[in-house]
Amino acid sequence: MTLLSNQAFETLRQIPLYVPGKPIQEVQRELALESIVKLASNENPWGPSEAVKARVIKAVTGSAYEGLGLYPVSDGFYLRSAIAKRRGLNLGQIILGNGSSEIIEMAAKAALLGGGSGVAPKHSFAIYGIATQTAGGRFIECPCSPTEMDVDAILGAVQLDTRIVFLGNPNNPTGVMLGREGLARLVRELRDDILLVVDQAYSEYEDPETYPDAASFLDERSNLLVLHTFSKIHSLAALRIGYGVGHLKLISLLERVRSPFNTNMLAQVAAETAVQDYAFEAFSRARNAEARQAFFTEAANHKCKATGMAGNFILLESALPAPELFKDLLRAGVIVRPMHGYDLPNHVRVTLGKPEEMEAFWAAASVVLDNVGCGCR
Amino acid sequence: MTLLSNQAFETLRQIPLYVPGKPIQEVQRELALESIVKLASNENPWGPSEAVKARVIKAVTGSAYEGLGLYPVSDGFYLRSAIAKRRGLNLGQIILGNGSSEIIEMAAKAALLGGGSGVAPKHSFAIYGIATQTAGGRFIECPCSPTEMDVDAILGAVQLDTRIVFLGNPNNPTGVMLGREGLARLVRELRDDILLVVDQAYSEYEDPETYPDAASFLDERSNLLVLHTFSKIHSLAALRIGYGVGHLKLISLLERVRSPFNTNMLAQVAAETAVQDYAFEAFSRARNAEARQAFFTEAANHKCKATGMAGNFILLESALPAPELFKDLLRAGVIVRPMHGYDLPNHVRVTLGKPEEMEAFWAAASVVLDNVGCGCR
Repeated sequence: MTLLSNQAFETLRQIPLYVPGKPIQEVQRELALESIVKLASNENPWGPSEAVKARVIKAVTGSAYEGLGLYPVSDGFYLRSAIAKRRGLNLGQIILGNGSSEIIEMAAKAALLGGGSGVAPKHSFAIYGIATQTAGGRFIECPCSPTEMDVDAILGAVQLDTRIVFLGNPNNPTGVMLGREGLARLVRELRDDILLVVDQAYSEYEDPETYPDAASFLDERSNLLVLHTFSKIHSLAALRIGYGVGHLKLISLLERVRSPFNTNMLAQVAAETAVQDYAFEAFSRARNAEARQAFFTEAANHKCKATGMAGNFILLESALPAPELFKDLLRAGVIVRPMHGYDLPNHVRVTLGKPEEMEAFWAAASVVLDNVGCGCR
Repeated sequence: MTLLSNQAFETLRQIPLYVPGKPIQEVQRELALESIVKLASNENPWGPSEAVKARVIKAVTGSAYEGLGLYPVSDGFYLRSAIAKRRGLNLGQIILGNGSSEIIEMAAKAALLGGGSGVAPKHSFAIYGIATQTAGGRFIECPCSPTEMDVDAILGAVQLDTRIVFLGNPNNPTGVMLGREGLARLVRELRDDILLVVDQAYSEYEDPETYPDAASFLDERSNLLVLHTFSKIHSLAALRIGYGVGHLKLISLLERVRSPFNTNMLAQVAAETAVQDYAFEAFSRARNAEARQAFFTEAANHKCKATGMAGNFILLESALPAPELFKDLLRAGVIVRPMHGYDLPNHVRVTLGKPEEMEAFWAAASVVLDNVGCGCR
């Protein structure tokens, strides 16, 4: 037996690969287009703010203590302090990740160290399943409609050996969201030896007054990990930075699977500035709400079925198989995300961009959809 | 049973924590010193070059295709192309990591997915053992002198269930190195169902004409992964970027445990510039050789025992326990790395810095060592 034929590697081959949104550069390389609009990865088109960029440049050119040649502060002391202040939490309740997706992986690694299974709803972020499997766990996808989150389905899918449960709230890619009541039921009825990961990557797009923040249950549950990212409303996807909040003891255990220096220095200083920039967040939230409203109006004009009430994206259903609509739009220079890999065979996910980007999208989409008929089954 | 008392978490508590070099900011915070010299983390004090910094700033302020708001190119196409060109390899033989330490973890995760053990020599990089254990594996540290690498000891430590073996070449923190002959024996005599990870983080400090590059065995072995980092001679530790090279099939399997977007965009563009900057490397290599020579001279003047013939660091043995010498130097504003955690109770590791930094080190060290007597047992 050689290395490449051994059991571990055979198991690896069975794990699905994550397919990211197509990068602009790749489309340029392949199609030689001049103008490309990317609405594929739920990035915030409005940022980051000038203050954040200036802070990054200062760190690149800056003092001896922040040179690019020095390792970052491994424990992220300054950024964690800023987050703690904003969230009204203790510094020790916060862990940083190389994007919140790394924290998903840390959580799976920690919870599944002795084996077991992980649960997530159907039509949710692919990394939940991949992280479960690369951590050596069995992945259980529970049935769930793309238009409503189902707490009973999640609770019902839990097995004796389940060690971790994932919930995106709002959920990507469907844009559905559990309200406070449903969330409370999940938090309280889930067995307390199971780690519940509530991924709030898109939460900052919701009204802070009414959003059901899972962190409000931290006082009563120590098996709860709440995730945030700087890749969405804070517009720092290129830098890779996210954070998790939980019970002091839970975070101190997760620190044992966090790699030293997992978050880079420029991400730390950028995020430290961004997390205090409420004005930029409010601006982005308002622009996103406008873009959502305009999208639904336009979709109705084209008799298209558009869904998703939260986040900065919309699911668009058409008569065309997703890969076909994706390719047709690509040829017109518009990158969206085909959703057949999420068991949504006729859906594409469209990120809400700037008005001119949405115009480009509808210009391209109209040509395609008016040809085949937009009408959904 | 609650989450925090379950078996996986109990196992986690047994895994040692990695202790990074003390950051300058932390020393400032704690001791309120004005001038601090950090010689604790084997960073290159000379960089990065102006060309690299300019490239990073261009990407921060730059075009729509490189904005901080957009996800990085997940597969690192452009950086991998530049590395492939330099190393004379195929693009598909290269995998990128958030620092080479992330690739150590990916390798452990992949190789140990079905359980088993990992082997590394005593007095080597702590992450080898930690990555083995957080991947659910048993860690076997083989006996090895701090002054010579022992191939027989490594081969002798391998068990039936061993899935991965680590070698640092040059080895951190001892600065010892296997020559071509010893390396060939390890590569050829190790069972071919075991992944051999040769960590060449410090290789660029060696003479490229004579350095025994493990990649020269890639044609005959598919169970070989060779690691490089941009954190050392390329002076990009703050940005977190490294790479591994191996057989096409091995790399394609490791891609299954690589997280999407694991390397940030600024690290990618900085490294793409740095990997082609041979002049900066040659400059840094020459300065390092001078600093090493000067260190040995100064150590002899103080009748101190200094060892380490490769890398950008020296092991200094004294009559004082390592934590004490570390603290004494810290109070004088000089950060070194105490090595008691590496079973070197009277050693500190000193990074070779700029001449003025080494002067500061000896000024502080002389006071301490001349008091206790530098003489080693």
